Amino acid sequence: MKLATLKNATRDGTLVLVSRDLKRALAVPDIAATLQGALDNWAQLSPRLAELAAALEAGPVAGEFAFDEAACASPLPRAYQWADGSAYLNHVELVRRARGAEMPASFYTDPLMYQGGSDSFIGPREAIRAASEDWGIDFEAEVAVVTGDVAMGADVAACASAIRLIMLVNDVSLRNLIPGELAKGFGFFQSKPASSFSPVAVTPDELGEAWQDSKLHLPLQVSLNGQAFGHPNAGVDMVFSFARLVAHVAKTRDLAAGSIIGSGTVSNKQGSLNGAKVEHGGVGFCCLAEVRMLETIEQGAPATPFMRFGDSVEIRMHDSAGHSIFGSIINRVEQAE
Amino acid sequence: MKLATLKNATRDGTLVLVSRDLKRALAVPDIAATLQGALDNWAQLSPRLAELAAALEAGPVAGEFAFDEAACASPLPRAYQWADGSAYLNHVELVRRARGAEMPASFYTDPLMYQGGSDSFIGPREAIRAASEDWGIDFEAEVAVVTGDVAMGADVAACASAIRLIMLVNDVSLRNLIPGELAKGFGFFQSKPASSFSPVAVTPDELGEAWQDSKLHLPLQVSLNGQAFGHPNAGVDMVFSFARLVAHVAKTRDLAAGSIIGSGTVSNKQGSLNGAKVEHGGVGFCCLAEVRMLETIEQGAPATPFMRFGDSVEIRMHDSAGHSIFGSIINRVEQAE
Repeated sequence: MKLATLKNATRDGTLVLVSRDLKRALAVPDIAATLQGALDNWAQLSPRLAELAAALEAGPVAGEFAFDEAACASPLPRAYQWADGSAYLNHVELVRRARGAEMPASFYTDPLMYQGGSDSFIGPREAIRAASEDWGIDFEAEVAVVTGDVAMGADVAACASAIRLIMLVNDVSLRNLIPGELAKGFGFFQSKPASSFSPVAVTPDELGEAWQDSKLHLPLQVSLNGQAFGHPNAGVDMVFSFARLVAHVAKTRDLAAGSIIGSGTVSNKQGSLNGAKVEHGGVGFCCLAEVRMLETIEQGAPATPFMRFGDSVEIRMHDSAGHSIFGSIINRVEQAE
Repeated sequence: MKLATLKNATRDGTLVLVSRDLKRALAVPDIAATLQGALDNWAQLSPRLAELAAALEAGPVAGEFAFDEAACASPLPRAYQWADGSAYLNHVELVRRARGAEMPASFYTDPLMYQGGSDSFIGPREAIRAASEDWGIDFEAEVAVVTGDVAMGADVAACASAIRLIMLVNDVSLRNLIPGELAKGFGFFQSKPASSFSPVAVTPDELGEAWQDSKLHLPLQVSLNGQAFGHPNAGVDMVFSFARLVAHVAKTRDLAAGSIIGSGTVSNKQGSLNGAKVEHGGVGFCCLAEVRMLETIEQGAPATPFMRFGDSVEIRMHDSAGHSIFGSIINRVEQAE
């Protein structure tokens, strides 16, 4: 089952079912007006949604219309929780190596996570607004899951079965604000502005064999200004599965339905800087910071600039037949007034 | 205007107006079913709520019933944002002094804030559930505001006028999990379980002269197991006003209506450990950590234990006539199954 939220005059948009090929959509007001509404009562409503999704897939249904990714809000335009992990430790290792710091052994057993702002996400085709390029505007291409209710202390198996939906995310980061914030000791805040999510969120069964052990085993495609920038496999080098990340969040508190949990920047272990670049046959990168870290490690200083006003990033994922699963996130950077 | 949310079968409860003396209540389903619903459309709905609130205050109205603080959920049982500051720098100074660290000069000009989990708050009379007393269970008595929409980059005056409601909060903290989490560099996560808020939230005008310069100038009353533990004035030693905290949050992103912004533990500058204690004429403390820090500074080690299963904390605030403004938060610590 594929789900999306179309923008309307309300803050939560209109929930629609989307055909597997992302071409047709159907609103489901008799079942749930919004995605949060569906998640709030998933056990009761999801069988009815699945039934309609099957009918939509089978052929024309009354009320269906052409699906337009550009008309979408993030599947949850606002959410009650957005917590992001750093499950691809290669990324964290590079961050550390670039500043000459050791990687603490505990990082391999205890997930690094932060609580993000979730009150107003930008849409998958909306602009990243920033007051200044000096903020060091970067994208982070990630996978994220949406959970049902999870009880405090739930084990990894229970957390795995609480994963309701999967989607992609651009976790926008303001790199030049990060050192000052982390030095204060309380973690990210202003350095993590509003994220955006893929037009479509899908249930785990929709991913078939690509969804294994609470990981998504497909390449994540990233383009910068229309040029291929990365296609690391999201199932490779993910040290903590989504179930493990959810269990980390639930250790000391209940999680409510509609909580979004992110993987952190997808990052595959590679050789040298040059070998890692897409144009040299590598799998490339899911954020600018990573290529800048490799430049720092190998050349003494970063050379690749962060995003400038007018730059645009696209994030998408194809199934084994080459079809887009989630639609594309395309965010262009604009100067805020 | 005083507002509360009664528990019902839904996740968001029922919005009610509450009389100034906290004795009578009135549901307002024709205006807004939930507090978030009212906040989503505040400009249009708040005049109608104010009109009904005035009628409730004036005398018996059809449909009114006895208000029961114990039947309340937190005013927003779940919220799209909960961001907490550390506006009372005396608290931060003590944290630093207790571990022999300097206070960075920037702390006096740049607020320290963290993003908290907001997907499922506990109710004002519900238990703090913890798996182990070894987590170092502590309360933090604070004041919090609920905002309307705030545009990215809004100035302090615009942020001041976006404050819709004021309430009290118990920002539950698991002190023994904090050092490990802060050492990881990404801030609090498991160390900040679900918070609880006062039964009643009030509009700024309800506070009269006690609401000045986006600060609440009244003593915050804290009792531990029925004994007075603190009554520092929330208007004293608050280095950053709520408007200033909201502006900090809005620097790089829009804030959506219903965002909750906390003050951090209320803390007044005092003399010695003994002088600070309520039983010695001091204004006492709003968390156990603070008395433990003074014990560490003066005696070399903390002596006061954190909360144990069965312990209970009460947080409330009285107006100048001695009447409770927000009702009481009363949270008892229980062992999670």
